Amino acid sequence: MQEKPIITLTTDFGLKDPFVGMMKGVILGINPNVELVDITHNIQQHNISEASLTLQISYNYFPSSTIHIAVVDPGVGSSRRPILFLADNHYFIGPDNGIFSSIMNEADPDYLSVVHITADHYFRSTIGSTFHGRDIFAPVGAWLSKGVDMSKFGEPIDDYTKISIPEAALSDNSSLTGEIVSIDNFGNAISNITRDNLNSLDTTGAGDRFRVIYNNAPLTFVSFYAESKGPVLSAIINSSDRLELFVDKKNAADNYNIKIGDRVEVSLI
Amino acid sequence: MQEKPIITLTTDFGLKDPFVGMMKGVILGINPNVELVDITHNIQQHNISEASLTLQISYNYFPSSTIHIAVVDPGVGSSRRPILFLADNHYFIGPDNGIFSSIMNEADPDYLSVVHITADHYFRSTIGSTFHGRDIFAPVGAWLSKGVDMSKFGEPIDDYTKISIPEAALSDNSSLTGEIVSIDNFGNAISNITRDNLNSLDTTGAGDRFRVIYNNAPLTFVSFYAESKGPVLSAIINSSDRLELFVDKKNAADNYNIKIGDRVEVSLI
Amino acid sequence: MQEKPIITLTTDFGLKDPFVGMMKGVILGINPNVELVDITHNIQQHNISEASLTLQISYNYFPSSTIHIAVVDPGVGSSRRPILFLADNHYFIGPDNGIFSSIMNEADPDYLSVVHITADHYFRSTIGSTFHGRDIFAPVGAWLSKGVDMSKFGEPIDDYTKISIPEAALSDNSSLTGEIVSIDNFGNAISNITRDNLNSLDTTGAGDRFRVIYNNAPLTFVSFYAESKGPVLSAIINSSDRLELFVDKKNAADNYNIKIGDRVEVSLI
Repeated sequence: MQEKPIITLTTDFGLKDPFVGMMKGVILGINPNVELVDITHNIQQHNISEASLTLQISYNYFPSSTIHIAVVDPGVGSSRRPILFLADNHYFIGPDNGIFSSIMNEADPDYLSVVHITADHYFRSTIGSTFHGRDIFAPVGAWLSKGVDMSKFGEPIDDYTKISIPEAALSDNSSLTGEIVSIDNFGNAISNITRDNLNSLDTTGAGDRFRVIYNNAPLTFVSFYAESKGPVLSAIINSSDRLELFVDKKNAADNYNIKIGDRVEVSLI
Repeated sequence: MQEKPIITLTTDFGLKDPFVGMMKGVILGINPNVELVDITHNIQQHNISEASLTLQISYNYFPSSTIHIAVVDPGVGSSRRPILFLADNHYFIGPDNGIFSSIMNEADPDYLSVVHITADHYFRSTIGSTFHGRDIFAPVGAWLSKGVDMSKFGEPIDDYTKISIPEAALSDNSSLTGEIVSIDNFGNAISNITRDNLNSLDTTGAGDRFRVIYNNAPLTFVSFYAESKGPVLSAIINSSDRLELFVDKKNAADNYNIKIGDRVEVSLI
Repeated sequence: MQEKPIITLTTDFGLKDPFVGMMKGVILGINPNVELVDITHNIQQHNISEASLTLQISYNYFPSSTIHIAVVDPGVGSSRRPILFLADNHYFIGPDNGIFSSIMNEADPDYLSVVHITADHYFRSTIGSTFHGRDIFAPVGAWLSKGVDMSKFGEPIDDYTKISIPEAALSDNSSLTGEIVSIDNFGNAISNITRDNLNSLDTTGAGDRFRVIYNNAPLTFVSFYAESKGPVLSAIINSSDRLELFVDKKNAADNYNIKIGDRVEVSLI
């Protein structure tokens, strides 16, 4: 464990209700020596896919052994299981509803060990059926941060849930098709086309520059926002290594009516 | 005091202005070894009753000796007093305007010792008349977290302010009348009917199942959200032990036009 | 350095995206023993002037040696420089785009030492061109909090950027003209007329009371909000020592259609 262990929180609870505060109270009651960091509490409600993408692009900016608790949990109280696993030297705790799909997809399946959390002596003494974030995931994260071994929390399982996360497809060696998967606070539209996808294109031919097509129009490809000339839809590889559509200093999604699911294509010129 | 004392903050300041940050700066300037936790800063502006309910359902998820500072303070700078008290082994600091009514109502009056804060050497050296959260409550909380005894901050008072908090009423031994007191981020409508209220119903008769009535219609009573069949208004005991109206994976308040103050009834079948 | 160094964050990132969490992860990966405090992440997007004012009124509620990272950075990735400086015993880190103008204006120019950050071994090993908050400012802040000397991060510069911040003007010794520069969460309209500006008026004559004029109407001047009689636009010196227009328990900006840039005048009676 780290000198001062870190627990991050990712939920769809919003910041008006006291739910996040309650989780932190429970954690600090078990381990006062923990560093709590909010990733976001504004995941769209019940949007497991959005939470999955958010975790995927965020977790590895934290140091090894960080514990990430994620709670977007429409099935709370039903038979869906609480799970815990280690991937890429980070711990993840949450419902087994696919919220960790993007991270599981990237992990080496031979080394991915997922535990169904059943050891209820690590839960709050009174467990409700509507707030496992507070009653199960928070205390399990806190005990894990105190050094309790993963294997103490339950039994390994192989049939954990993964949901389909849309991935960019290589049409041939010279073109890619992806889609917009999120819109950020600035109105930038982020696709599922990664830097690795772009690197997989066969650039041994004549040109190695990219053409990005959105809504039948080619977009200028730039390397920083202010390089874009004027308020025109442009493309960039963003800080999470994703192809992103933006308008310099403007809200691209609003100005170009870009929606999640919209198609984006890349081909070599 | 705790090894690492905890101070929680509950305000109506919102998260756009730097007011919360200023309070934290003042606290850390006095006690760098404190853990700061936000309960919420999105209490409806000037809504003392909402703040009171939020504190009541939140405080006891924190460990004993936690210090809770609450600032919804429309009368700041007037003759309303700053107060400090200990209840259920938690400390509370804020304006004497009724913001702690729900907690005071639950406390044993014989052991409730409320201090009118007057010891201004524990205040910021320059005290304004518009931001006692920063100038009085934050530094008093910080000094308290360093181990200064409660009695050093002022004189005991008995005439502290309580506002009327609507409570569920037992009509006879077989039925209860309450009302909706808050709507959460998910659109769930939370009533003031508690698990204890329900337990007080006389179930020695034939049935011991409940009928929940809202807007003249009986609601299905379930034990977890996903147990509800289809998108229909249902009832549950929520994670704060309150009777709550919800629609599985939907916004109940929007879909059924539920408002704060709406009547909810429970009777035995 | 402080026993437990403090790093504050002020950005226009909002709280939906994981950007703030990523910055905190990077900082804690370098210095786990740091206290992180959010000032605000809801600066209006790209509004450098608003960020400048927010920092100016906030920073000195934190203890000496606090490190303030500010990221409102529309020019990220272009030739605008990253900078670091010490003023009034506080450290400031961010883009050289004028975001620190209000603080630089208050500093003694003879003692203001601004460093152009160039020592890229203190940056993240992979630096993108779109998120210097995470890749440059966060790690530089973390290394500074570990005691690395300011001079190690780059070279002193004199040609740092300052933007024009509107200041109140003394028309003669008996009247002042200023303007509304921000609207807070409560709808209070805050002007750029400071307590010092008011003190600079020549009060040796007959009266020493102020008349505040907004939109051709004189406003009652009070010393705390609830002193105002009824829901009428009034004036007060607020908790940041600025002249503020408000309506007791109401949203003044909405009710009186007050906008940023509106003129406010003060004269002696």
